[in-house]
Amino acid sequence: MYIEESIQHYLDDLASARPIPGGGSASALSGAMGAALASMVCRLTLDKAGYEEVRPQIEHILGQSEQLRARLAALVQEDIAAYGRLVAAYRMSRATGEERIERATTIQTQLEGAARVPLEMAECAAKLTQHCQRIAEIGNTSVLSDIATATTLASAAAQGAASMVRINLRSLKNAELASELETQLASALRQVEQSSREVTDTVGRRA
Amino acid sequence: MYIEESIQHYLDDLASARPIPGGGSASALSGAMGAALASMVCRLTLDKAGYEEVRPQIEHILGQSEQLRARLAALVQEDIAAYGRLVAAYRMSRATGEERIERATTIQTQLEGAARVPLEMAECAAKLTQHCQRIAEIGNTSVLSDIATATTLASAAAQGAASMVRINLRSLKNAELASELETQLASALRQVEQSSREVTDTVGRRA
Repeated sequence: MYIEESIQHYLDDLASARPIPGGGSASALSGAMGAALASMVCRLTLDKAGYEEVRPQIEHILGQSEQLRARLAALVQEDIAAYGRLVAAYRMSRATGEERIERATTIQTQLEGAARVPLEMAECAAKLTQHCQRIAEIGNTSVLSDIATATTLASAAAQGAASMVRINLRSLKNAELASELETQLASALRQVEQSSREVTDTVGRRA
Repeated sequence: MYIEESIQHYLDDLASARPIPGGGSASALSGAMGAALASMVCRLTLDKAGYEEVRPQIEHILGQSEQLRARLAALVQEDIAAYGRLVAAYRMSRATGEERIERATTIQTQLEGAARVPLEMAECAAKLTQHCQRIAEIGNTSVLSDIATATTLASAAAQGAASMVRINLRSLKNAELASELETQLASALRQVEQSSREVTDTVGRRA
């Protein structure tokens, strides 16, 4: 589990010629950092005099951002697993006609899996940017630059993951499923864009 | 050194109520991941048949992206140190008039330091996106989604770092210095934006 190993080890493996970990996994880690920063700003608001009124709301958001952080941190590894299964599928034998059919079916199943994992990252990032928007509105004004950065990292997670979703959807033969997943992705990206814009405006006004 | 500790430990400390590590450090790590992914795409191009002609160029870019990765990874920690020195300056005694002057001068020095570190991140990210642009043009087409994600992470590093530069420049009393650093930052951000656009176009055309 990379999450339990050193940052240096992760970066070295990311830079290596092995295709995993790759962009999906790194996007998930960017999202987990965004969630961690959102949690930090929540905690620095809970501690601060003058913010007693927003305490219940901030406590609720903190619970949500910590859940998203845990999920995004888990996706760092799940993306590696999903991509590993896809690579294994491509390496299946195609000596007989039966094997070729088996291989083609497995590839399609694993392509869907390798698309769904980064899609979930984009959806987590979308929820996270919505929380960032609320934190920007009511949180401790002296750490709003951190909520701006949290939103930037969440947005990068969504966009980075989107590249990975799309590359996998392109080889998916079930056009209906591909279109459904593409629609879900577009919806998450729209949410991220809208919330990011709101965070920028709010931070500009309040900070 | 966080870089030698686990990712989980870093994320937990990022999420904690202590203001360091904060957004600057996380931005540097996002940039280091971008550089690592750029190196991965270089290596997957060097290994690939049909790309012999671009080998010398890719080898050169790989050297550069690995240098930027090392520098950005070091900045993960340097940002924490710079911000720690700024916090220590704010906590200096102001019991006497002399102490107040000493404190005010130290704060100004440390504000500059706390702005220069994320500024360097933005400048590293700008160089990185230029390399990504070239990799997108000549690299292995089957991993271009990873260079798109590398660019996204580098861009997030620059934008996240920019929030941190600006919050520190705002309290800087030397207006000439503040303006000079703001100009440097704007130039780095322009480069990032331009290269990011080129990467999107090129990946769309070649992938």
